[in-house]
Amino acid sequence: MEPIEVKREIIRYGNGLAERVEDSIVTEHPVTIKINGTEFATIVCSPDFIEDLVIGFLASEGVIRKYEDLETIWIEEKSGTAHVKTKKINPYYLTFQGKRYITSCCGAGRQGYVFINDALTAKKMDQVRVTISSQECFSLMKDMQESSQVFQNTGGVHNAALCQSDKVIISRMDIGRHNALDKIYGHCLKNSIPLSDKVLAFSGRISAEILLKASKIGCEIVLSKSAPTELALKLAEDLGITTIGFVRDESLNVYTGQERVFLD
Amino acid sequence: MEPIEVKREIIRYGNGLAERVEDSIVTEHPVTIKINGTEFATIVCSPDFIEDLVIGFLASEGVIRKYEDLETIWIEEKSGTAHVKTKKINPYYLTFQGKRYITSCCGAGRQGYVFINDALTAKKMDQVRVTISSQECFSLMKDMQESSQVFQNTGGVHNAALCQSDKVIISRMDIGRHNALDKIYGHCLKNSIPLSDKVLAFSGRISAEILLKASKIGCEIVLSKSAPTELALKLAEDLGITTIGFVRDESLNVYTGQERVFLD
Repeated sequence: MEPIEVKREIIRYGNGLAERVEDSIVTEHPVTIKINGTEFATIVCSPDFIEDLVIGFLASEGVIRKYEDLETIWIEEKSGTAHVKTKKINPYYLTFQGKRYITSCCGAGRQGYVFINDALTAKKMDQVRVTISSQECFSLMKDMQESSQVFQNTGGVHNAALCQSDKVIISRMDIGRHNALDKIYGHCLKNSIPLSDKVLAFSGRISAEILLKASKIGCEIVLSKSAPTELALKLAEDLGITTIGFVRDESLNVYTGQERVFLD
Repeated sequence: MEPIEVKREIIRYGNGLAERVEDSIVTEHPVTIKINGTEFATIVCSPDFIEDLVIGFLASEGVIRKYEDLETIWIEEKSGTAHVKTKKINPYYLTFQGKRYITSCCGAGRQGYVFINDALTAKKMDQVRVTISSQECFSLMKDMQESSQVFQNTGGVHNAALCQSDKVIISRMDIGRHNALDKIYGHCLKNSIPLSDKVLAFSGRISAEILLKASKIGCEIVLSKSAPTELALKLAEDLGITTIGFVRDESLNVYTGQERVFLD
């Protein structure tokens, strides 16, 4: 396994003093996904939970619908290649894969809501199966950030956590916002973890794409340390998802789905 | 022009009190780029400086080499389409455009350093034409953030600024990190602003892609509020670029190219 962080000598300046110190820096690693022998995409990521990442990525992109659609997946670490064999591929994916869509997270390109794959896989939350209190929001956000040793060391990664209202279930980090979510999604698909009563905590902004991904994962509540976009909030209203942003210290904003939130 | 931010009623909770307030939320808008009649890409962005964004994007992607390669560019706001006619297209672009590369900023896809387009357009900074002091770093970062009214209102955008050591020249914001840089790049190409003695200030993390973009723009010094990645620092060493990260309050880290930095 490649290292997730490396040591590097830097010059730190503060309070008028400069000193040479050893610092921890996150790495970036490309992983090229080959589907049935054909190159599909290269993901640049933090190199842990790569199999989960690939599974979650293929499911988010609508290439597969469920874990059982995969026949084998083999990560060749040396060359950074994920060799995927499928039993079944989403037929819509084959039709629509050619279109290039550059999204806002960094002006870079995944497919967006305009795509039929999203319309087919986004789930509407028409029930209230989980609720959360403001204190639980603060506690989950704190637990997520503290559980990420890489974030503590480098400050250079995004964190995502799948939670119940009262505890973090699994937590993943990555230099890419979407990758952190895909690692969680892949883990849940592989291990048949039911997701409909869960809460997603996230360190990054809630863009339309992130909201759609949370919807595909099946979470009813999305917590974020950061801001949402207007399109994400419209989608959240359409899909019946509760969005809570700027969860910091002892304050937060409830944007949509307030019926799931108790402000105590 | 579509709005960059909209008002929305939310529930704000803090210090044990919940109240309904009107908040400002950033918007996301898709802009589809058609090159000589053929759809090329769709960028989701904050809807200002769209022409500059498209020019900067095409130059960063290696489709054009200079502003004069464009014949016309017409933004059809109603449909969100940028109609581009070119006099000249980079021949390497035509060969290599088919390959999909998912990058780390959000696990999403622009082309990476492995691409010949980058190797052809990245510039090596083998001279010291500009220097900066620690106090200038703090001052530029503060000016950049304060100049962005949208950031002040929503907290939901990234900021980038082209600077001299002692002042911000132009400042742009976008929901996408790369878009903010592309808006600056496009502006400079269109207005023939020389870039080799400039400083780039940026609110987001310095990934390999961001570093390469700064290199293409021609900046010798990159300042960021956030962390760099190891690959970005290796590229910075190769390309002779000074990188300074975690510029916050009165502290900062110098990672590479310290010969341009005076810590006073």
